[in-house]
Amino acid sequence: MERVDYLSDERKRAQFDVDAMKYVWAGSRHAFEVSDRISKLVASDPAFRKDDRTMLPRKELFKNTIRKATYSWKRIIELRLSEEEAAKLRFYVDEPAFTDLHWGMFIPAIKGQGTDEQHQKWLPFAYKMQIIGCYAQTELGHGSNVQGLETTATFNPKTDEFILHSPTLTSSKWWPGGLGKVSTHAVVYARLITDGKDHGVHGFIVQLRNLEDHSPLPGITLGDIGTKFGNGAYNTMDNGVLRFDHVRIPRDQMLMRVSQVTREGKYKQSDVPRQLVYGTMVYVRQTIVADASCALSRAVCIATRYSAVRRQFGSQNGGPETQVIDYKTQQSRLFPLLASAYAFRFVGEWLKWLYTDVTQKLQANDFSTLPEVHACTAGLKSLTTSVTADGIEECRKLCGGHGYLCSSGLPELFAVYVPACTYEGDNIVLLLQVARFLMKTASQLGTGKQPVGTIAYMGRIEHLMQCYSDVQNAEDWLKPSVVLEAFEARAARMSVACARNLSKFANPEEGFAELSADLVEAAIAHCQLIVVSKFIEKLQQDIPGKGVKKQLEMLCSVYYLFLLHKHQGDFIATSCITPKQASLANDQLRALYSQVRPNAIALVDAFNYTDHFLGSILGRYDGNVYPKLYEAAWKDPLNESDIPDGYHEYIRPLLKQQLRAARL
Amino acid sequence: MERVDYLSDERKRAQFDVDAMKYVWAGSRHAFEVSDRISKLVASDPAFRKDDRTMLPRKELFKNTIRKATYSWKRIIELRLSEEEAAKLRFYVDEPAFTDLHWGMFIPAIKGQGTDEQHQKWLPFAYKMQIIGCYAQTELGHGSNVQGLETTATFNPKTDEFILHSPTLTSSKWWPGGLGKVSTHAVVYARLITDGKDHGVHGFIVQLRNLEDHSPLPGITLGDIGTKFGNGAYNTMDNGVLRFDHVRIPRDQMLMRVSQVTREGKYKQSDVPRQLVYGTMVYVRQTIVADASCALSRAVCIATRYSAVRRQFGSQNGGPETQVIDYKTQQSRLFPLLASAYAFRFVGEWLKWLYTDVTQKLQANDFSTLPEVHACTAGLKSLTTSVTADGIEECRKLCGGHGYLCSSGLPELFAVYVPACTYEGDNIVLLLQVARFLMKTASQLGTGKQPVGTIAYMGRIEHLMQCYSDVQNAEDWLKPSVVLEAFEARAARMSVACARNLSKFANPEEGFAELSADLVEAAIAHCQLIVVSKFIEKLQQDIPGKGVKKQLEMLCSVYYLFLLHKHQGDFIATSCITPKQASLANDQLRALYSQVRPNAIALVDAFNYTDHFLGSILGRYDGNVYPKLYEAAWKDPLNESDIPDGYHEYIRPLLKQQLRAARL
Repeated sequence: MERVDYLSDERKRAQFDVDAMKYVWAGSRHAFEVSDRISKLVASDPAFRKDDRTMLPRKELFKNTIRKATYSWKRIIELRLSEEEAAKLRFYVDEPAFTDLHWGMFIPAIKGQGTDEQHQKWLPFAYKMQIIGCYAQTELGHGSNVQGLETTATFNPKTDEFILHSPTLTSSKWWPGGLGKVSTHAVVYARLITDGKDHGVHGFIVQLRNLEDHSPLPGITLGDIGTKFGNGAYNTMDNGVLRFDHVRIPRDQMLMRVSQVTREGKYKQSDVPRQLVYGTMVYVRQTIVADASCALSRAVCIATRYSAVRRQFGSQNGGPETQVIDYKTQQSRLFPLLASAYAFRFVGEWLKWLYTDVTQKLQANDFSTLPEVHACTAGLKSLTTSVTADGIEECRKLCGGHGYLCSSGLPELFAVYVPACTYEGDNIVLLLQVARFLMKTASQLGTGKQPVGTIAYMGRIEHLMQCYSDVQNAEDWLKPSVVLEAFEARAARMSVACARNLSKFANPEEGFAELSADLVEAAIAHCQLIVVSKFIEKLQQDIPGKGVKKQLEMLCSVYYLFLLHKHQGDFIATSCITPKQASLANDQLRALYSQVRPNAIALVDAFNYTDHFLGSILGRYDGNVYPKLYEAAWKDPLNESDIPDGYHEYIRPLLKQQLRAARL
Repeated sequence: MERVDYLSDERKRAQFDVDAMKYVWAGSRHAFEVSDRISKLVASDPAFRKDDRTMLPRKELFKNTIRKATYSWKRIIELRLSEEEAAKLRFYVDEPAFTDLHWGMFIPAIKGQGTDEQHQKWLPFAYKMQIIGCYAQTELGHGSNVQGLETTATFNPKTDEFILHSPTLTSSKWWPGGLGKVSTHAVVYARLITDGKDHGVHGFIVQLRNLEDHSPLPGITLGDIGTKFGNGAYNTMDNGVLRFDHVRIPRDQMLMRVSQVTREGKYKQSDVPRQLVYGTMVYVRQTIVADASCALSRAVCIATRYSAVRRQFGSQNGGPETQVIDYKTQQSRLFPLLASAYAFRFVGEWLKWLYTDVTQKLQANDFSTLPEVHACTAGLKSLTTSVTADGIEECRKLCGGHGYLCSSGLPELFAVYVPACTYEGDNIVLLLQVARFLMKTASQLGTGKQPVGTIAYMGRIEHLMQCYSDVQNAEDWLKPSVVLEAFEARAARMSVACARNLSKFANPEEGFAELSADLVEAAIAHCQLIVVSKFIEKLQQDIPGKGVKKQLEMLCSVYYLFLLHKHQGDFIATSCITPKQASLANDQLRALYSQVRPNAIALVDAFNYTDHFLGSILGRYDGNVYPKLYEAAWKDPLNESDIPDGYHEYIRPLLKQQLRAARL
């Protein structure tokens, strides 16, 4: 069979070395090679087929997921995959499963919060998957506010046990992935109570199910919390509900690295600094930012390819219509998202470095950068996940009507992605944490305490409060220093304005509540500055490959000029730039879109996604969209017969005016 | 059983007559009474149950939908419902079905484009549902560009027939609702060819299926196009694919009101003005705007009620936590959407009037207002559907994690709503049509041609180009005249700026393409002005009921100040207002949120939605959320057994380290 490539002409237009860009995107040549090899391994194995996923009823879907999870594990063992390779395999299988929580939350929680003895006792079982664990924190009535959890773990010195109990309906554990149907164990967060005293929330290892027949242990109620948003999507996961009716566990199943309960029931803090938990948080958020760039780049890849395939209007003399990617309205929505995918990739890379850095500092008992690191990771998690969720839906709309078909891949990508805006810290709650840090920094200016890291620019507050942009023509907006100063000045002035308004309140907390919507805007300005500055920093590096650096410079400019245009109200209202300069930025942005256009297909090819991983007929590498859409339609269950189920009962009586005969 | 109302304290705080507001929302006391009676009829009939919809596999889901459609028709006949009542019943059944297209597109197309003879022949069958019809326009390769359709209808004078044919794969009809499995007939749009000449796209009545056994007629391929976005949602609809292989239909099945083909094969235009089709378009778009206010108000009702139920943080001395509706961040996202729902309701009401007005003018052969009416309806369709789609998703996020459960109702509401951004004119394509009209108006200024209707303000261009807002304190922003002038000046200046930039291009079409992203922004400014001005006009009316008018004034101010804040860049960059005035607007907006707060629950109660229609546990009238969420979870198919399907095949071998025993 001849292989077609309807996008080959597009590919020839690229003005850079696509392979070199693939290494940049992957992070290194090694990372590229592992990724490439494992993604092809998954794509070529029919056991990992997923094109039927959006059509399967919940039970079949779930059964299929646990099959894939077990099969993946078998392959990992058979092929003796390294940890890196195994993680990549799970990533490319691309189906939320209990294993995500087992490897991503259960094991890390034991490692981070357990003692050496606990590591020795539990981790070997977990590593071999002889036990399967999840992370039971969130409750029916308690999400963001972890300190408000209601589940209790009461120490009984007589039996040397904790009694786990769900005292109210709202204390039911609710949402933990893997909990409902699969996990045999969980790390459960509960209020520790000794001798009538409440010591707040602590973690406990709790066995949930009998290891012989999988039945829930006495006193334990387990179930799935029900169908979630979207076809396929997170319905492959058994997010669960868990209730305890006075369930007893041995004392040594409290995670005791940071605090302990003694045999006598005494509560003690260890000398391990509590701040160590922040290391885990930085790690988790760094992976969320990396995931954002993945999800966004997938959606952008689909929308970009299909925009080059699809034609609408503009036919001249009976010739073909115009490719929709040639429309400026399409470019002005699509290319900023393409640039954002790259921007998030690089800021994610930097966060990886930050994690190593902060880990080293924590081990050296240096906690000085923690507040800044905390604010920065909270803000970047919020910013990147919000933009990505909205961006996926925008990409779906950019595909016109066909984006609404599950075979486009975009509905499932959206549905599976959006929870990222809510889990691991609701995005607005996180921005308020950033704002709190900004206000604290602002209040300490001039006290001699120099802001560091991503907030260092506030140290130059006097300059930033009075500087004016000297942009005089559109090209001036391509100068990184000009751009950085404008973004710094905007962020600084918005923070200072908030701080001034706050100072008018007698009660600072009241002021913070009252002004919180403005504070969120200041936090966003700060976070956008971080992403812009890390993109610019990336471009200071030596980046090999013909034309690669130039493409990245172009994308970086698209990224910041798009933001500048979108938020021109901020920039102009704070007098950082003039209306004329804003208009010049917009002119420059328009010119950049024309430069992106010939490279667009190659820029999404650089993500190196297989058709299996993309899971989208619209995003097919070869652009052979319409025949495949047509083919896929016939696989829908409704097409199993020409005459639909229910015709005889309902449609025929209607047409024949014999409603009494209808089985209603 | 005692009935609880956890929101009764909230309801007592309302500062207005909720019943009077219900009449305002419904449009009249009569409309309210019909709506109230029919919605309760539907809600109390178990045959219309829909809480299992998001869990049903496609075939069961679809069978259930056709059952409900037939049952609805039976009830309509049994109860001798009027046309108004029957339409309300279909609305409250709240499930997309083939009947939507039969009543909403097939019959109107025949009425609008058919001759009297055709009416007499076809409508009686259609009215009794002895035939079921759909509207087959869109093709696999052709959506927005109707003139690009490829299906052909070639006249054969020998047999006095048209031969319908699908010459290419992309010419397959694709998307029409009701086409795939149910419709016996369709109005098919195809290129009319007589004597080798292509006369462009015309409509034809085509029988698709045998009326005895429902099998597709010879030469006709029919099927469903596959699963669409979301659980339940539009998967109740058989959006279909249709291909013709030289299918013959009698000549009198071409819809011949506007143009005819004679027995000899001559093509003739009748003297019926072509502009009449615009009447239908205005009608359809008016219903879309009305639907937007319905969909948005549903989402807002759910999010508002749950925000009053849900508590997070802020517990003092062990007391209850703070209701999330008390957080300013929640208010600043939720209340503008509440205000938008009301704004869209009133602009929809006005569009109803506009439809009557334009119909009368068309009948009097007065086509003078058509361009303005066309631009205005295109723009309002685009604006209201985009805001509503985004707004529903924002409401979902405002419900935290639980909004992601299908039992919240919000995922399905979103998935079923979003196609409105694409069908009946892609929203960006429509805004470009608005922009074209704005540029034309701008170019004719000073030629003596006075702009009328929603564009009348451009007649005062000299004033609007140089006026300055005289707002000096926050309360000044409550004056309608001040606000209108600012919105008019902003819209006018953005249009004029675009027109000036366009004039720099030698080729106007090239300029329009190049500047299209800016033109879209100008169009949005114009459309927002229309909504603001119609809201303000509504408030000039006498509105009875204690406190009702005051509440509406408050919502109107929230609506326009939110827009002003969001788009402050536009207002400041065009010097319509100063940064200081923008800041005052923001202060006023914040103050308004506090005024909305105590009335919020009553303002959503005024929509008078039954719990059945809302279909949301989070949005329950009585606020009894958590016990019902817990109860609903157990109905998921995954909870049919404690031990999930697949445990023995996959999970147990994993745990027991017996992967070879796994059935993989």
